[in-house]
Amino acid sequence: MKILRLIKLGIYLLPVAGMGQQISLEGENVGNHNYIQFVNPFIGTKNMGHTFPGATVPFGMVQLSPETNFEPLHINGKYNPETYRYCSGYQYADSTIFGFSHTHFSGTGHSDLGDFLVMPTVGKLNLESGDAAVSKSGYHSRFSHDNEFAEPAYYSVLLDDYNIKAEMTATERVGFHRYSFPKSDSTHIILDLMAGIYQHADKNVWTFVRIENDSTVTGYRQTNGWARTRTVYFVMQFSKKFTSYGHQKYNKPLYNSFYRKFNENENFPEMAGKEIRAYFNFSTEDKEQILIKFALSGVSTEGAMKNLQAEIPHWDFDQTKSESQQKWNAELAKIEVETINPEEKIIFYTALYHTMLSPVVFEDVDGYYRGLDQNIHQSEGFTNYTIFSLWDTFRALHPLFNITQPARNNDMIQSMLAHYDQSVHKMLPVWSHYANENWCMIGYHSVSVIADAMAKGYIGFDPERALNAAVKTSQCEYFDGLGDYLKYGFVPEDKSTNSVSKTLEYAYDDWCIAEIARMNDDSSNYKNYLKRSASFENVFDPGYRFMKPKLADHEWVKKFDPLDTHGQGFIEGNAWTYSLFLPQDIERLIEMNGGNDAFIAHLDSIFTMKLEDKYIEKNEDITRDGMIGNYVHGNEPGHHLPYLYNWTDKPWKTQDRVRMIMKTMYGNKEDGLCGNDDAGQMSAWYVFSALGFYPVCPGSNRYAIGSPMVKDAILHFENGKTMKITTRNQDINNVFVRKIKLNGKELDRNYLLHEELMNGGVLEFIMGKSH
Amino acid sequence: MKILRLIKLGIYLLPVAGMGQQISLEGENVGNHNYIQFVNPFIGTKNMGHTFPGATVPFGMVQLSPETNFEPLHINGKYNPETYRYCSGYQYADSTIFGFSHTHFSGTGHSDLGDFLVMPTVGKLNLESGDAAVSKSGYHSRFSHDNEFAEPAYYSVLLDDYNIKAEMTATERVGFHRYSFPKSDSTHIILDLMAGIYQHADKNVWTFVRIENDSTVTGYRQTNGWARTRTVYFVMQFSKKFTSYGHQKYNKPLYNSFYRKFNENENFPEMAGKEIRAYFNFSTEDKEQILIKFALSGVSTEGAMKNLQAEIPHWDFDQTKSESQQKWNAELAKIEVETINPEEKIIFYTALYHTMLSPVVFEDVDGYYRGLDQNIHQSEGFTNYTIFSLWDTFRALHPLFNITQPARNNDMIQSMLAHYDQSVHKMLPVWSHYANENWCMIGYHSVSVIADAMAKGYIGFDPERALNAAVKTSQCEYFDGLGDYLKYGFVPEDKSTNSVSKTLEYAYDDWCIAEIARMNDDSSNYKNYLKRSASFENVFDPGYRFMKPKLADHEWVKKFDPLDTHGQGFIEGNAWTYSLFLPQDIERLIEMNGGNDAFIAHLDSIFTMKLEDKYIEKNEDITRDGMIGNYVHGNEPGHHLPYLYNWTDKPWKTQDRVRMIMKTMYGNKEDGLCGNDDAGQMSAWYVFSALGFYPVCPGSNRYAIGSPMVKDAILHFENGKTMKITTRNQDINNVFVRKIKLNGKELDRNYLLHEELMNGGVLEFIMGKSH
Repeated sequence: MKILRLIKLGIYLLPVAGMGQQISLEGENVGNHNYIQFVNPFIGTKNMGHTFPGATVPFGMVQLSPETNFEPLHINGKYNPETYRYCSGYQYADSTIFGFSHTHFSGTGHSDLGDFLVMPTVGKLNLESGDAAVSKSGYHSRFSHDNEFAEPAYYSVLLDDYNIKAEMTATERVGFHRYSFPKSDSTHIILDLMAGIYQHADKNVWTFVRIENDSTVTGYRQTNGWARTRTVYFVMQFSKKFTSYGHQKYNKPLYNSFYRKFNENENFPEMAGKEIRAYFNFSTEDKEQILIKFALSGVSTEGAMKNLQAEIPHWDFDQTKSESQQKWNAELAKIEVETINPEEKIIFYTALYHTMLSPVVFEDVDGYYRGLDQNIHQSEGFTNYTIFSLWDTFRALHPLFNITQPARNNDMIQSMLAHYDQSVHKMLPVWSHYANENWCMIGYHSVSVIADAMAKGYIGFDPERALNAAVKTSQCEYFDGLGDYLKYGFVPEDKSTNSVSKTLEYAYDDWCIAEIARMNDDSSNYKNYLKRSASFENVFDPGYRFMKPKLADHEWVKKFDPLDTHGQGFIEGNAWTYSLFLPQDIERLIEMNGGNDAFIAHLDSIFTMKLEDKYIEKNEDITRDGMIGNYVHGNEPGHHLPYLYNWTDKPWKTQDRVRMIMKTMYGNKEDGLCGNDDAGQMSAWYVFSALGFYPVCPGSNRYAIGSPMVKDAILHFENGKTMKITTRNQDINNVFVRKIKLNGKELDRNYLLHEELMNGGVLEFIMGKSH
Repeated sequence: MKILRLIKLGIYLLPVAGMGQQISLEGENVGNHNYIQFVNPFIGTKNMGHTFPGATVPFGMVQLSPETNFEPLHINGKYNPETYRYCSGYQYADSTIFGFSHTHFSGTGHSDLGDFLVMPTVGKLNLESGDAAVSKSGYHSRFSHDNEFAEPAYYSVLLDDYNIKAEMTATERVGFHRYSFPKSDSTHIILDLMAGIYQHADKNVWTFVRIENDSTVTGYRQTNGWARTRTVYFVMQFSKKFTSYGHQKYNKPLYNSFYRKFNENENFPEMAGKEIRAYFNFSTEDKEQILIKFALSGVSTEGAMKNLQAEIPHWDFDQTKSESQQKWNAELAKIEVETINPEEKIIFYTALYHTMLSPVVFEDVDGYYRGLDQNIHQSEGFTNYTIFSLWDTFRALHPLFNITQPARNNDMIQSMLAHYDQSVHKMLPVWSHYANENWCMIGYHSVSVIADAMAKGYIGFDPERALNAAVKTSQCEYFDGLGDYLKYGFVPEDKSTNSVSKTLEYAYDDWCIAEIARMNDDSSNYKNYLKRSASFENVFDPGYRFMKPKLADHEWVKKFDPLDTHGQGFIEGNAWTYSLFLPQDIERLIEMNGGNDAFIAHLDSIFTMKLEDKYIEKNEDITRDGMIGNYVHGNEPGHHLPYLYNWTDKPWKTQDRVRMIMKTMYGNKEDGLCGNDDAGQMSAWYVFSALGFYPVCPGSNRYAIGSPMVKDAILHFENGKTMKITTRNQDINNVFVRKIKLNGKELDRNYLLHEELMNGGVLEFIMGKSH
């Protein structure tokens, strides 16, 4: 089935999704707020974007999306680097689909999930997943992008090997499948509980399946993956009764082995074991559709059933699709933009879409959720969320939420505080992961998210409780060099690797806690944490003008290469980049770097220097495509760098750089992201920058001015107010901001206050070809 | 520490527990109802009794008892028969203790459990369990029975290798440890989550431990043992703060392996993995006591904490011990007996004690429990129980409960109905096992328990719901030959092994369902099941006068040895024994066997024939000691046989036999049980027989008269009434019942009705030396 719908958008013909997909502006989805037409879910699905094209709703727990390969995490006991490409399960260059799983991270640089793979087949039952390279070696099927289509909350593809059309949509907690089969008396739907992303031999801890009746299946999968102790429960409901079913167990079968009372493998309604693949058999007429509702829960199968009944009580796939797409339209409509180039509108709305794929709701419809202590809790006064990739998202994603989603962001903070309450470490989340802490990356940037919300006036939580949680978090001495940081005033490299990055981020987090204390009128903690936040001074080598790793004896490390991102005291960035991580005190940063001119020269060097290949090959997160000189847009540590010129006498350089980055680092193509989208951070950078400003220092209420990409934008806030952003002389070449008017009054500074934004009105950028 | 207290009981000096333990009748426990003095928990701890000596309360979930060896289930991939001896963790002949675990089956012929082994040590920490045969090869310690003491709800022992006195008591859901240490700056308490009974390499599915604070630990252990998917949660609270702690993980450590942010092994409060041993360090003064409260839950650690707080909110070990022993006294006092020989009193009360070790309460103090569907349910109007070893216990244990524990037995039936509701098979329990069905043995004798309660007027449940559950259970065609039973009218041996035993027990269960239907005034089901219950006719070979296996072609199997218990169509019994399993129609049984005289001759043969050794060696459940001729008292299929003479003209033969069995098959010694106590069935047989009657056909309200062992007995019923059983001319040689008077009126039949018993009064047996 080839979806090919062409329509003119003004004078442009829009080949938005590369090969197979072109978007229509007319038809079923066009309404007052048809913004989903501007979203291309394939952006970032090629190479290192790590996005997925499948069906999901804003902040929904279910991401129902195809898996195009199964790369095992280890081959012959060794890490298989190919798995990295499959963080979201999908690579655009592939031509095979193994099935459709219900959970996927968006854009992360590590992965997990891929729970509950469903695959329809016809013909002789084959329960092996097989080799993607060998046709019919398993249940997988070839497919063509010509027959593939994706938009928010909807994905479809033709499975060539079986002539089965697969369609999917989703609600927050339920995936909805619709399969159109050929005529066959040997139609199967496989439920593979062994399949998973980053699946290693011992990842499956336990699986449990019950055939409740002739069309309802329940169960769970417990995994030891990136999350150490993770269990997801499900209910799977078929629109048609299966005629028979069975399963294959791939671990040692111990059940009932002594008594052998029944044939466990066929039509026996109770399955359990480490590794199981189940199947359900049907006869189908030509074009006969079988639908599946697949509900998830972190609590229990009872919870999954409640979710299913509450969210999709019917069998009308199109109704669910339409309702879920309306949810997207409602969210996307919060920022109405017009661009000069229609591709930029696609890029913008896809970026905005990508900012709403995580965190995800992590509670049942009745508010029960599994906590970090593995006990069941009920959220009171908030909705519980998980997937906080905070080292990434504290930078721009959560600040963006304070514009587009302040209520949700408050719920997320409440979720962080619940996480803290349940944490045996008494720590706020580092990387919250389905009732687990996976400890990914460094720092504890929950405190930044809290400080940022408070600075912007969103205090839908107990601020004293938040301060207490932040303080306790910062006192966990066994955590990642933190005890040494407190003891030495910096993290010694011989005590803990990546010591400079840790020192700098702890210092920033200390500043955030100081701010939380200040806003709590707690002057004692304010002073204490402000003092702690000066720790960055201890890793700055004034002679060398770089942040540098120091040893416990207070000597600098001897061997030091500021361009290398490995083994130099930094993580996912080199000394050039990381030495500029001082968002809380950029004046001091400039001073340390020799003042205005020297700092500008330093920044310029970053963007213009030619980096030797040896510094790039070792970095699996980004490629040359994600770099401008030594500036790495494909990873987070540099994201604020282009905006730092604002603190010098050459803010126009910021304007120039950010327009260039928007133009070169983002595209309306499958490889339109230059690195991992990182749970929406990369996209949030774009959304901010496209609107003309950026939160360089989360925790403050200031946005640094950049250069808007949009022609016009209307921001609809939860407070009922509206800010219209408009430009004059906007053009691809007119990247310089000559003047800014806020409600008609010229803004004589290059930052905007959050309250100014949220009070609404008109923000006018007068653009020019020269600065 | 040698406990040696001597006291005269009348004129007898009582060496009740063999080597180390003698019981005092004076002292702390003597009161109006000091019955615990007559309980010797060591009875059955030697050889095949499979009882445990540890601390527990009546029907309590916690059985806190020592493990004297760790026999792995497999050695070099092969079943290790030695594990069988350790069903309850303890063998009296051993001289090593590995620690004290919190869960144990009593008397079962298969096992599991052994959760949460705690072991105190001093000196260099050794986390290996070690080899019992090699001193100091692990954390285990030698001990002597001289320094060991056990009574209901209390166990103590001196751990010789460490000079630590260990004492334990328990409540329903909490184990209470008291350790008296020597002076040491290297005192340890080990929590071994790898230890378990019937522990195989993959039994541990997952373990999870949190150090909540300096004296509180929570966690759980998930196992795949006899119960396929079983999780038990705990809270462990120390009376003294530990100075440090740590753990060793024996499976591949994957946690945080990439970032290495902390030393997970020491003082890191979050542990998880397949196999873990944790330890807690202290300094102790000489004789310093450290107490541990260890609460269990099938629901969550939150539930375990509630249980702990509700049941032992203090640190007074002696108070808990005293309260728990009062619970035992209250239960044991329900039957006040006097015997001619004081040893018989010990045997009687120990048997009565053993009838109250299972089923066990399986819900938290707030009524929440884990159901068979792994969801959390709340009991409404009943207390939820688990451990229903029904093939054993339907015979005499549940009938005994209808005298001593009718309210609890009703709760047990409610628990069975809840099990049914949650069962994906829609079956009542076969062997209910901690939110699992382990399918042990044959039949579905829940229906017998239900029929028996109803026949005796205890209908504290919805009888229609019970009938529906019984009917549905009997329709599960894939269960253990049941479909073939329905199709052929018997289970064909070529379709399902042990086919005759299954046919006979299904037929009996059918009769039970017919009775349940009759008592529901459901004549249609009554007729239907009465008809089904005649299926036994189909496996009776009238020429040969044995029940015999038949094939699907309706031909008898050719090779047949009625003395062999293996491969002949029977399970745990031979054709001689099993051919007499027709409790529901003994008149027909006698008729089939050629009438009164032929039947008596047949029964006599059983008790007098000399069995060749080859028929015994293959049976691991019982030894020659448990046999009288071909009569096997050490296993259940024969338990009703001695009473069958009652249906002939020589009922005195029953009287003779049962007195002989009581005298020879039960003793006040560690090997005082001639086979597995089987969750109390063997002991219930004794309690009934000692009182002078026995429930040959559970589901009817008749008790067959035997010959009382007691001199006098007063039975206190829940209905407030009292039955005094008294004897005249009672003597070891006067085993024949010459006359019976019920409330002064001679009983002219050799059965007693349940209502006659429960109406109270006086039941007088006039005994004689001859019949």
